[in-house]
Amino acid sequence: MAREKLKEPGKLLDGIDIFIFDCDGVLWRGDFLIPGVPKVLDKLRADGKTLFFVTNNSTKSRAGYKSKFTSLGLDVQPEEIFSSSFAAAAYLEQTKFKDTGKKVYIIGEKGISEELDLVGIPWLGGEGDAGKQADMGSGGKVDVDHDVGAVVVGFDRHINYYKLQYAQLCLNELPGCEFIATNLDRVTHLTHAQEWAGGGTMVAAVSGCTGREPTLVGKPAPLMIDYIAQKYGISDRSRICMVGDRLDTDIAFGRNNGLKTCLTLSGVTSEDELMDRVPRKKGTEGIQPEFYVDTLQDFLSAS
Amino acid sequence: MAREKLKEPGKLLDGIDIFIFDCDGVLWRGDFLIPGVPKVLDKLRADGKTLFFVTNNSTKSRAGYKSKFTSLGLDVQPEEIFSSSFAAAAYLEQTKFKDTGKKVYIIGEKGISEELDLVGIPWLGGEGDAGKQADMGSGGKVDVDHDVGAVVVGFDRHINYYKLQYAQLCLNELPGCEFIATNLDRVTHLTHAQEWAGGGTMVAAVSGCTGREPTLVGKPAPLMIDYIAQKYGISDRSRICMVGDRLDTDIAFGRNNGLKTCLTLSGVTSEDELMDRVPRKKGTEGIQPEFYVDTLQDFLSAS
Repeated sequence: MAREKLKEPGKLLDGIDIFIFDCDGVLWRGDFLIPGVPKVLDKLRADGKTLFFVTNNSTKSRAGYKSKFTSLGLDVQPEEIFSSSFAAAAYLEQTKFKDTGKKVYIIGEKGISEELDLVGIPWLGGEGDAGKQADMGSGGKVDVDHDVGAVVVGFDRHINYYKLQYAQLCLNELPGCEFIATNLDRVTHLTHAQEWAGGGTMVAAVSGCTGREPTLVGKPAPLMIDYIAQKYGISDRSRICMVGDRLDTDIAFGRNNGLKTCLTLSGVTSEDELMDRVPRKKGTEGIQPEFYVDTLQDFLSAS
Repeated sequence: MAREKLKEPGKLLDGIDIFIFDCDGVLWRGDFLIPGVPKVLDKLRADGKTLFFVTNNSTKSRAGYKSKFTSLGLDVQPEEIFSSSFAAAAYLEQTKFKDTGKKVYIIGEKGISEELDLVGIPWLGGEGDAGKQADMGSGGKVDVDHDVGAVVVGFDRHINYYKLQYAQLCLNELPGCEFIATNLDRVTHLTHAQEWAGGGTMVAAVSGCTGREPTLVGKPAPLMIDYIAQKYGISDRSRICMVGDRLDTDIAFGRNNGLKTCLTLSGVTSEDELMDRVPRKKGTEGIQPEFYVDTLQDFLSAS
């Protein structure tokens, strides 16, 4: 029973314990809150639901991303936020990286380093390597720390050749060095004036000089679901609902992981596209959510 | 009759009209000329052979690359050099890009812009965009010239986010905009102290934010062979010989394009590896040249 317009909220809500919300296009658009969202979140909490807010944005830590919610008047705890910066730290924790005594080299912004600090994993690179230049004169080289055991790559507006060469040397020359990507998003929304080259840009650059594919920790990798299901002891994943505005990421991600899915039309997908009255965007063909809503406000009963 | 050690030079030379030489590891190693090379080139010319020197290096134009030859005492004409910077210009000429009245956006160094100047194709970006920063403040954006009809990407030690965003906008938003890569080399030899992230890094970054695969003009794309065969009216490609030190690039390239192939052991491939007495490097399995030599000096008769 796919693509059912949610008219009776209980039909979805009654069977769900955990809601995972994509943020942009679902809770807000750029700097504008989508009407009714605070009320909906209040109601879900009052009904005993557990809420997560997921973003592939790796430039902020969970604590840093919380200020985005606060600025829009949404009261959310850092623990409810699942950023891809946190996902990288959670992955390294799950795989007991700390026991290796190794360090992480970061291509990315402070969200990643802040999350690594919180789990006590030593790191280098990141913001400190903005503006660095490699010595390319005769006999010149970039010296790498031989204790690097993983390279984490996320969106980095200060990407430069020094960082790419550092990552190349770690991944090509240090045995066992892991390659971790926070996300593979082609474009991102730095400003509302245009789309911007996303974290997939920096990750691909590192693939391009190493021939290696990364371990992906952000959407659409299943890591987040595994983490949440394990932490909350959820064995029936159909009691988790993914709510998003994108068919090819949010809804595909939910369906691939056995979750219930709900598309909101408040973002990039139109009802005509969802219902195949106009051609689908490339990559979204055949992907159907169980339910859809105009905005999250449809989670509230009409009465 | 593969992997035959060339003991009687005439066995190879008599059947060949055009020799295509890879440079590093064949003519020189870093800044050191391989012994006997000037004599060999003189002899081949005296015998009426046509010579080409091919490099995936896009940072120099053919005229600029000539100085490398001159500094080692090799007398070579710019027209004999087939750099990937020239290949990009040659491709745009062959496809009549100039007739579109469009411009090229360059991620890369001055080799590309110099070659475009020589064929009269207008361009922007390149060295001029080193150090540029995108306005990422509220409402900020990067303005692109709507007359860009192709993005050419090569090795660029001044790669930055501004350039990547510019290329992203051109390729994702300007209808029909072409994506051209000079080369996909993972690593390159900027200094002899270590391997360096190569042109494949910058090309992959642009693929990562566009989801597009480039048209490749450097090795191992067939463009160079098509160009040479057409220009010299060669219908029997087995009268062209590719001479190189790498099995996975030079020799594979020659074989895939119907050329004779000759491996020289003066570069990265050892005789033990060639003869499968030790395991082959990844990606070189099963690739066999018709002939091999210790150095180009074996092209001269023992007498």
